[in-house]
Amino acid sequence: MTYSIGVVGATGQVGREFLRILEEGDRPDLPVKSLRLFASERSAGKRISVRGQDHLVERAEPDPKLFKGLDFVLTAIGDHEARTYSPVIAKAGALNVDKSNAWRMEPSVPLVVPEVNPRDAREHHGIIAGPNCSTIQMVVALWPIHQVNPIERIVVDTYQAVSGTGWRAVDELHAQTAAQVCGDELPRQVYPHQIHQNLIPEIGGYKGDGLYSEERKMIDETRKIFHLPDLRVSATCVRVPVAIGHSEAIHIELERPMQPDEAREILRGAPGVVVVDNPVQSEYPMPIEAAGQDPVYVGRVRSDPSHPRGLALWVVGDNLRKGAALNAIQVFELIARNGWRSPAVRQEVHA
Amino acid sequence: MTYSIGVVGATGQVGREFLRILEEGDRPDLPVKSLRLFASERSAGKRISVRGQDHLVERAEPDPKLFKGLDFVLTAIGDHEARTYSPVIAKAGALNVDKSNAWRMEPSVPLVVPEVNPRDAREHHGIIAGPNCSTIQMVVALWPIHQVNPIERIVVDTYQAVSGTGWRAVDELHAQTAAQVCGDELPRQVYPHQIHQNLIPEIGGYKGDGLYSEERKMIDETRKIFHLPDLRVSATCVRVPVAIGHSEAIHIELERPMQPDEAREILRGAPGVVVVDNPVQSEYPMPIEAAGQDPVYVGRVRSDPSHPRGLALWVVGDNLRKGAALNAIQVFELIARNGWRSPAVRQEVHA
Repeated sequence: MTYSIGVVGATGQVGREFLRILEEGDRPDLPVKSLRLFASERSAGKRISVRGQDHLVERAEPDPKLFKGLDFVLTAIGDHEARTYSPVIAKAGALNVDKSNAWRMEPSVPLVVPEVNPRDAREHHGIIAGPNCSTIQMVVALWPIHQVNPIERIVVDTYQAVSGTGWRAVDELHAQTAAQVCGDELPRQVYPHQIHQNLIPEIGGYKGDGLYSEERKMIDETRKIFHLPDLRVSATCVRVPVAIGHSEAIHIELERPMQPDEAREILRGAPGVVVVDNPVQSEYPMPIEAAGQDPVYVGRVRSDPSHPRGLALWVVGDNLRKGAALNAIQVFELIARNGWRSPAVRQEVHA
Repeated sequence: MTYSIGVVGATGQVGREFLRILEEGDRPDLPVKSLRLFASERSAGKRISVRGQDHLVERAEPDPKLFKGLDFVLTAIGDHEARTYSPVIAKAGALNVDKSNAWRMEPSVPLVVPEVNPRDAREHHGIIAGPNCSTIQMVVALWPIHQVNPIERIVVDTYQAVSGTGWRAVDELHAQTAAQVCGDELPRQVYPHQIHQNLIPEIGGYKGDGLYSEERKMIDETRKIFHLPDLRVSATCVRVPVAIGHSEAIHIELERPMQPDEAREILRGAPGVVVVDNPVQSEYPMPIEAAGQDPVYVGRVRSDPSHPRGLALWVVGDNLRKGAALNAIQVFELIARNGWRSPAVRQEVHA
């Protein structure tokens, strides 16, 4: 079995990362028959080379006919566009993994991280949502611990890279950096404040109760993925002058005490996790080392001195890969491996 | 009454900031009669202009005669040097405020933040320790809340500027920034890893139990300043690519619930604190705005959704000013205002 794959938003950051991952090597569970790339009018007509083949970027249109024949389609577009495109793609018989915030909290749409809640993917109706980047890397690191010793509370403070905002923010960080070195005025268009050598404790729109949307997402999405609607989660999300790689200082409270050694042992055996934890030798996860890599890196694992059943840890991941494009590919692989194609397709097969 | 003031380590970052504050305007509680500057052999002989007067930097020697006649002496030098100099200065009859880690946890040495525990300063024996920069700004922000509703637990994750490490680290950040813009190899001498567009979750030496010394200090010093030897505190301390200004994401648990409005009201009336908290308008504390300023800035005040008696806040301060030099000046002012000079001097006065 081979698959026809589509990418809507193919010229964006997550779309490009998706193509880069496909290019890096064969993925045995997702052999590619054909690849079609879609983008808005602005980028349509461009040509992108993937695996030695030239691909024309087609203009995306919310028309089921356009997506006919595709098995898997990633949408890496804005929330508003995703509201339009996902149902169209599902109607065309393809399975859509959407990276935006449009569908994540929709009860009928599974929100899936394959290392954590793979079975939820089975219940899709043609659309599966990929969680927010900062949520993904946190749940990949915490779920294996939670399986052994239930987590009762999570306090997380993030250090998030500008690539989470998109190309323009990466350009802005570099432009501000260059301007400072050259003594020029710092350009500023994307963020409300300078990000070069500064911190901005605002990610997403304001959602009331003192929270920005990124903080709300980390709470709500973690609860949905863990199937714990009342899980106690608190987050402060901060943009830092780093290009790629989100970092998180996490403090958890468990049902029973757990020694750091046990936590490290569990994490060493966990899928998608790499433990880097040798503080004496200054070895711990860092964004410059996580950028471009697949795993979620965990270090600084220690007892939380402020809680008898607490653990503290430091988690770093590439927000464009596991935080977005890689997770989508892994969802497609999960579906392909298990034969959990879209209901429409299943009907056709059995007809 | 006017005072003779000395600065040991006058050419270092904290020493220079101390002189800059004296230069910015008269401090009514600390009229300066004379000023003497001391440094190691390397910097001795330099001339520094303060308030229109040229000052020769004298070579520091651990000899009480050298400090005779001085009323207040700041030592902004390393832990090892401070172990030698503080007793010598006290013996000379001056009151020493030491900025290093040498004396902070010594039971007979007060550890003083004037907004928090001014009365502790009275019990000195010629030496008063200034807390670690990240501790100072945290306790200034939390103490006023603690007075109204006792704090039972503090979880803090820091975002600390490189100036906390010294001049060389600021130079390294700027040199790495310039090298990246020019496409050169990034120089690296001060930190074990690149700091430009990266994060280093290591501050201070490794202290066992998974903690680095900065994290240990935040726990131990807060307990001593609050007179709560069992206060539950947990910290993750992270170096970020920012020149000046430490930031802290803080989560506290109180004895009773407290509305964010009440917390903001308390903080608006608190000494040394400025509330900047209008998330809808993207107004919150940031290091680029706190740098060069005296107050501790507090924003993002909100209920902690993970705890019924929890509050979360975001605290930013200039690590060289309130975190070091300004706090020392305020301790001198406190002593001067209350006539709490060194025991030796008191004896002379009454003889």
